[in-house]
Amino acid sequence: MPPHLLSVDSLSRDHVDHLLRVAARMEPIAQRRQVTRVLEGAVLGNLFFEASTRTRVSFNAAFCRLGGSVCDTTGFTFSSMAKGESLYDTSRVMSGYCDAIVMRHPEQGSVAEFAAATHVPVINGGDGPGEHPSQALLDLYTIDKEFTRLGKQLADAHVLLTGDLKYGRTVHSLIKLLSLYAPMRLTLVAPPGLEMPSHLVDLVASRGHRVEQRDSLADDYSDVDVVYTTRIQKERFTAEMSEGFSLSRDFTVDRAFLDGRCGRDTLVMHPLPRDSRPDANDLDVDLNGDPRLAIFRQTDNGIPVRMAIFATLLQVESLIEQDLRPVRWFVPKRLGVDDAAL
Amino acid sequence: MPPHLLSVDSLSRDHVDHLLRVAARMEPIAQRRQVTRVLEGAVLGNLFFEASTRTRVSFNAAFCRLGGSVCDTTGFTFSSMAKGESLYDTSRVMSGYCDAIVMRHPEQGSVAEFAAATHVPVINGGDGPGEHPSQALLDLYTIDKEFTRLGKQLADAHVLLTGDLKYGRTVHSLIKLLSLYAPMRLTLVAPPGLEMPSHLVDLVASRGHRVEQRDSLADDYSDVDVVYTTRIQKERFTAEMSEGFSLSRDFTVDRAFLDGRCGRDTLVMHPLPRDSRPDANDLDVDLNGDPRLAIFRQTDNGIPVRMAIFATLLQVESLIEQDLRPVRWFVPKRLGVDDAAL
Amino acid sequence: MPPHLLSVDSLSRDHVDHLLRVAARMEPIAQRRQVTRVLEGAVLGNLFFEASTRTRVSFNAAFCRLGGSVCDTTGFTFSSMAKGESLYDTSRVMSGYCDAIVMRHPEQGSVAEFAAATHVPVINGGDGPGEHPSQALLDLYTIDKEFTRLGKQLADAHVLLTGDLKYGRTVHSLIKLLSLYAPMRLTLVAPPGLEMPSHLVDLVASRGHRVEQRDSLADDYSDVDVVYTTRIQKERFTAEMSEGFSLSRDFTVDRAFLDGRCGRDTLVMHPLPRDSRPDANDLDVDLNGDPRLAIFRQTDNGIPVRMAIFATLLQVESLIEQDLRPVRWFVPKRLGVDDAAL
Repeated sequence: MPPHLLSVDSLSRDHVDHLLRVAARMEPIAQRRQVTRVLEGAVLGNLFFEASTRTRVSFNAAFCRLGGSVCDTTGFTFSSMAKGESLYDTSRVMSGYCDAIVMRHPEQGSVAEFAAATHVPVINGGDGPGEHPSQALLDLYTIDKEFTRLGKQLADAHVLLTGDLKYGRTVHSLIKLLSLYAPMRLTLVAPPGLEMPSHLVDLVASRGHRVEQRDSLADDYSDVDVVYTTRIQKERFTAEMSEGFSLSRDFTVDRAFLDGRCGRDTLVMHPLPRDSRPDANDLDVDLNGDPRLAIFRQTDNGIPVRMAIFATLLQVESLIEQDLRPVRWFVPKRLGVDDAAL
Repeated sequence: MPPHLLSVDSLSRDHVDHLLRVAARMEPIAQRRQVTRVLEGAVLGNLFFEASTRTRVSFNAAFCRLGGSVCDTTGFTFSSMAKGESLYDTSRVMSGYCDAIVMRHPEQGSVAEFAAATHVPVINGGDGPGEHPSQALLDLYTIDKEFTRLGKQLADAHVLLTGDLKYGRTVHSLIKLLSLYAPMRLTLVAPPGLEMPSHLVDLVASRGHRVEQRDSLADDYSDVDVVYTTRIQKERFTAEMSEGFSLSRDFTVDRAFLDGRCGRDTLVMHPLPRDSRPDANDLDVDLNGDPRLAIFRQTDNGIPVRMAIFATLLQVESLIEQDLRPVRWFVPKRLGVDDAAL
Repeated sequence: MPPHLLSVDSLSRDHVDHLLRVAARMEPIAQRRQVTRVLEGAVLGNLFFEASTRTRVSFNAAFCRLGGSVCDTTGFTFSSMAKGESLYDTSRVMSGYCDAIVMRHPEQGSVAEFAAATHVPVINGGDGPGEHPSQALLDLYTIDKEFTRLGKQLADAHVLLTGDLKYGRTVHSLIKLLSLYAPMRLTLVAPPGLEMPSHLVDLVASRGHRVEQRDSLADDYSDVDVVYTTRIQKERFTAEMSEGFSLSRDFTVDRAFLDGRCGRDTLVMHPLPRDSRPDANDLDVDLNGDPRLAIFRQTDNGIPVRMAIFATLLQVESLIEQDLRPVRWFVPKRLGVDDAAL
């Protein structure tokens, strides 16, 4: 494994397979049937220069479930950076305090610059329009786990990616990871102007996958295994694009689309947050409670996957199985009121 | 017990008695004579959508003293909610990361809406003008503990509630809890326009308590057992009420009032924070160091009461007594320089 | 030891020696070869009323490495203080929740006022232009540790202090601590208007040290053992001083100065953050990777020194050696890519 997790580009198929295997071994802890303290005494620096409560809490909880302690930093300005401190100095200082560092930063490349100044493992928690590798890994882990449940295989899978394919960094990272696996079929459906960048389409095609681009969901998708839809990233639009843009209802994934055009087993995924305001036309809430809606199983998977990332970078993954004991507190059978019985 | 703690309305007399008994068993830990790790491995999501440092730290410390880890979130906007995420989604996602959730939110009903989306225990840490049940429980626990010390009983107690009885949610919840107990005498003294809502007066009277409303503290209160006074909640006033309002000095609880009009054992309580600025006419600082001033014993009681809430909702209350060991570090005999020797 | 750590003025030579000895015993933990859980169950209140990420994380990590839990508070306004709560009330309430409190506050004297209301140990994490005793202790610890490595002794040492000697509180506290030791030579070089306050010069001279003030670095400093340079604290300037002020390049400590005017073993220290913007003329980045640059060894030393402060105030320093076990996770041999091999 590379010493840091900065980009999915640095991961080979073997690395990814290893991380997914370790994540699977974390399930008893993530599902709160077992407790481990293997990282007791270790300190995580959880540095969020950009707000992202979900991702921050997910990394924090994953490190705690391994037994470690977390120092959180939030806010758009890092106090000493406002006084002219370089990323180099910040990195070297923080690595004197912490055993691992998660960093989210609005500027692309900043996390890699930060990592270059230390040998303490650094995990990219999102660098603006750049990368967010732990999200891509948990997406892949979710597809793999759901496929196993459904008796399907990644080879020959048909994945439909829709929504903002231009600015949604999670779909960029996800298709890179998927492309490491056996050839599959990828269908890309985006509103005009928000298409997947062509270098990514070319990359995936060059690895033997069948890629098709369409401009509408009004089609037959009965053989699609996964519909991965994303929020429109309006905050990354240029002023010109923003003006007058509104997502057509035609791009909404809802019960009518799923019942009318997809298969009985078609999974729906979304990196969240989804915009549930009426005019957003994001993934519709009418699928809540439908077993095909995998979005909350997907966020739940963030815990074992991030535990696997920490355990692997800190090289404790082989110690955990000897360091387990049963949970003693109340754990609900289901987390949400309408979680689908599977 | 109900699965969540959203309102005192959901608590029966038996529930309250159980929580107070469990809180009493937490005292050796809360007073730092013993350590327990019964919740080691558990994660609390401490979600404060509205600033309240004291309440946040109190819940955080209580969970840590049970051995758990805490993920804190502060700030008026939750980053993903600003992107249109519903409380439903936030709740379901957070419950995938955490074993229990404390939530404070400026909007009444929001915490109940959040709790409806998960089976993980949710505790209302205050929802605007709505409820703040842990505060009411620690107030009741304080009265009960102080009465035991003074050889008094709740039955036939005389409790004087004064200050902002209209907007002070803590007094609303407190009299509901008191009304579950043996008939007592409640005297309500508020400035004009800030009287206790009549439906609460009626509720308490209907349960057999003797309720009297007055408009002045200039009276004989020599048989009052507890004076519970509250800050004027100007931030909840309408613009019309705010204009020109200033609390008369006549409503100030100070040494002169306590010495001149109350009994030798009369306790003074306050939910804090108190406004100590000279013109605020809140509870006077001239009582600091007086053993009748119970306000800091009251905040201290927040720890065992919140530990009891967590232990009960997470069903570990019976495990704690087998999981204790002595504290090894320095613990001062008294916390404050003028804590009254009792 | 005094019950709180508010100022270096309260420390005798014996206290300082004790703290440095305890810090040395913390090294195996701070360097992540050993783990201790001696403070398991204890809670630190880490109250930062002024932003200072580095200092906050350093105290947080030090307490975690002793096994304790931390409740962090950041932000310029404390929510209840905005409602008129006094420091007295805040202190008394917080000490009911926490076993030790670190406080940073923009107003000089505020931390002492806070400490006066509690018997829980309070550590001054910086009170505006006032004190920052843990920084001075880690500076002294660094000098002592580096001298031991170089076969030097504090007696007869020659320390050059330069930069903003008027507003830099760290240099004020440091020379007070140095003055407790065997007579040494102190050379003070400041731009006009930023000289060391005369009462401090007089204090140090009265204790038998040789103090010399100069106005330029363009001199022979070949016998200087330590160059301690500081950032210009423009945020503390009066408006009149600020106008048109820019630090001359002549005051920059860089490779040319060190190679041309200092000795082969001369150490360079800085309290950080350093302003690395091109026109700041703060400590130059061209010394990165030079073994004489001790600034990151200096921040690393913040962990054992702050651990020693906590361990001493909480009286567990003698328990740690029986409570150690080896670290099980990956620890890099060097933290930074260009840490000098020593």
